[in-house]
Amino acid sequence: MASINKNYNKLQGAYLFSEIAKRTKDFKEKNPNIEIMHLGIGNTTQSLTPTVIKGLKIGVMKLSNKKTYTGYGDEQGNLRLRNALVDFYKKRNINLDPQEIFISDGAKSDLANIQSIFDLNNIVAVSDPVYTVYVDSNVVAGRTGEFIDGQYKGLVYMKCDESNGFVPSLPKQKVDLIYFCSPNNPTGAVATREQLKSFVDYALKNKAIIIFDAAYAEYISDPSLPKSIYEIEGAKKCAIEINSFSKWAGFTGVRLGWAVVPMDLIAEDAERGKVNRLWHRRQTTMFNGASNIAQDGALAVLSPLGLKESKKLIAYYMDNATLIKKSFSKLGLKVFGGENAPYLWVKIPAGLSSWDCFDKFLKEAHVVVTPGSGFGKQGEGYIRLSAFADKKEVEKAIKSIEKNLKL
Amino acid sequence: MASINKNYNKLQGAYLFSEIAKRTKDFKEKNPNIEIMHLGIGNTTQSLTPTVIKGLKIGVMKLSNKKTYTGYGDEQGNLRLRNALVDFYKKRNINLDPQEIFISDGAKSDLANIQSIFDLNNIVAVSDPVYTVYVDSNVVAGRTGEFIDGQYKGLVYMKCDESNGFVPSLPKQKVDLIYFCSPNNPTGAVATREQLKSFVDYALKNKAIIIFDAAYAEYISDPSLPKSIYEIEGAKKCAIEINSFSKWAGFTGVRLGWAVVPMDLIAEDAERGKVNRLWHRRQTTMFNGASNIAQDGALAVLSPLGLKESKKLIAYYMDNATLIKKSFSKLGLKVFGGENAPYLWVKIPAGLSSWDCFDKFLKEAHVVVTPGSGFGKQGEGYIRLSAFADKKEVEKAIKSIEKNLKL
Repeated sequence: MASINKNYNKLQGAYLFSEIAKRTKDFKEKNPNIEIMHLGIGNTTQSLTPTVIKGLKIGVMKLSNKKTYTGYGDEQGNLRLRNALVDFYKKRNINLDPQEIFISDGAKSDLANIQSIFDLNNIVAVSDPVYTVYVDSNVVAGRTGEFIDGQYKGLVYMKCDESNGFVPSLPKQKVDLIYFCSPNNPTGAVATREQLKSFVDYALKNKAIIIFDAAYAEYISDPSLPKSIYEIEGAKKCAIEINSFSKWAGFTGVRLGWAVVPMDLIAEDAERGKVNRLWHRRQTTMFNGASNIAQDGALAVLSPLGLKESKKLIAYYMDNATLIKKSFSKLGLKVFGGENAPYLWVKIPAGLSSWDCFDKFLKEAHVVVTPGSGFGKQGEGYIRLSAFADKKEVEKAIKSIEKNLKL
Repeated sequence: MASINKNYNKLQGAYLFSEIAKRTKDFKEKNPNIEIMHLGIGNTTQSLTPTVIKGLKIGVMKLSNKKTYTGYGDEQGNLRLRNALVDFYKKRNINLDPQEIFISDGAKSDLANIQSIFDLNNIVAVSDPVYTVYVDSNVVAGRTGEFIDGQYKGLVYMKCDESNGFVPSLPKQKVDLIYFCSPNNPTGAVATREQLKSFVDYALKNKAIIIFDAAYAEYISDPSLPKSIYEIEGAKKCAIEINSFSKWAGFTGVRLGWAVVPMDLIAEDAERGKVNRLWHRRQTTMFNGASNIAQDGALAVLSPLGLKESKKLIAYYMDNATLIKKSFSKLGLKVFGGENAPYLWVKIPAGLSSWDCFDKFLKEAHVVVTPGSGFGKQGEGYIRLSAFADKKEVEKAIKSIEKNLKL
């Protein structure tokens, strides 16, 4: 008799955004004439840039002629694209080999699947609040116990709050795998070089591995802040970096990301090169490569003109972040993030829960925000705002909040 | 200290096609002036049809305008596409609900990941020879013991040979999950209605679940042969079907597939609807949807004109299969498959191993074939040929084999 993976029973409720969608839909059905504005979900809204459209079209047209047609591609992804990423890192004085880069269909898949190449007994550390994919993928794999009092037994939570500027402090106990996201989703906090260095030093000392989520790195404008973990000496021995074209090039729907698994990376029972080969084996066994069209689009993103256009796209979204930050500060709320990150983390008035606040914003101002508690226990008392909406919608939402929200 | 998933150490050597690529490359380096022909790998070679190119272009152009731009899409895939698939099944008198269909980046990912929603204690049955993804994904998950004498301990192998026409007989013991591929990769055998019915009856009786790989279904021209497991009564209660646009619409590089997880499906500890919800949770937690461009392409495939053009593409490849079958039979070899499937399974002369035969074809005729032993113990003594090459290459390869191969 077939039986199910019981770890799924430990997972909490629906995925955060399904619940948001449900409540929004319910409101919409009861109030069909009210226009709803979105400041919540991190979904991009602006069109792809001309250079990227051109690249994608080239990708499509290649498939129309059998001389240029391609089926299954190189296992780790188009070599030209991997070389372009090597150049992309070189500008930051990071030297990678194309063999260390694995093209995928997006950062979410990689961030969820990377745990599968490690032993189930590894102790996993995540920040709290956290991008839930890190947690849920480990729950389903069986690396945690039950969910009790807002946290999974067996996971080590690194508390992020006002006292540490939402950048986690080192775990006090020994851990084996550390998920670290900077610029952070959901808080918008960005780790300094010194902060990242403390994690790299910890990992080197304990032979731990850092899984570094750099999906928002291009939103960093402050040159003193590291955009890649490999800017820290020694990181190649202890860190995997996962990144994506989603947020800075509008690829949320196109789907394309990459993982860097350095040859120098080691683990307790994995000599130099072995973790890289494991990920290669995982990807060639359980994945069949990213879309060749999307890869041609990504090559266009990485061209000089493509990079220039992406900068404009980033500036557009960051203008939204500035608008939102100003408006919410004016309302007397404490707003974090939104400076080198497209997310803003807003402290809500005492006495309101995150979901209360969600409902309040929806009912009074017709604005959808993301409840902080959806990202973990420490997210309670906060909401996450995102800069990815259309500017007009942001302006309208702000106006409606300023006029109608009763805090 | 981070440590690796030790199940990876059980996996055998490199992925079959990496080894083929390596040997081919070595030969090419030693013989730079010899042209090598491919009758081995199942990679499509013909361009996409005009209707599909048009659909893909529409997909790209939508992303160039913010009014039609889309980021993250519907969690289970574009609803229009799922509805088009509902219609596609309706033509075969199969009624599905769009909620039962999950769009993915390809059948390989789904076939590899589907096991993760089931308990590690489930007993898994696979045919031998087998598409290795079914096996390797279960090895890595920890459902098997070591690899001894050509097979993994703990897996139940269903022998396929001349005596059963390469269609497996029912397992003698009780098993929980059964992988079944028809038309078969690698043997090209197609299960009859009666044969499939025996598996459905077995599954219903034992509350087992069949994971049915229908990736080559469109190659069936004999109307008496089932193209979907759901043509068998009761199958919705015990079968998941996985399919793809790769082989019949040329999407090997574009990447798009789908899984059907019926609401009626049950398991020992999963009431109606639960397995469907589990797969939904798996996909929304660990995957972020298929490329919106690829989905627009798939909609074009399923349009009346798209389907008509695909039929021509299938006919083109099946002409190759006929050519190969005729030629190899003329050489005095026994050839199976290649009639309702794009694969041919050739019995090689006694005394030669599959890899010997691979080397012989490469060295004497400069033709790359796929060694049958790469698909399992029972594949020894066979080679797999594929119809996916360009017709000119097939003709040249056949000529070279007829002229140069010394059997």
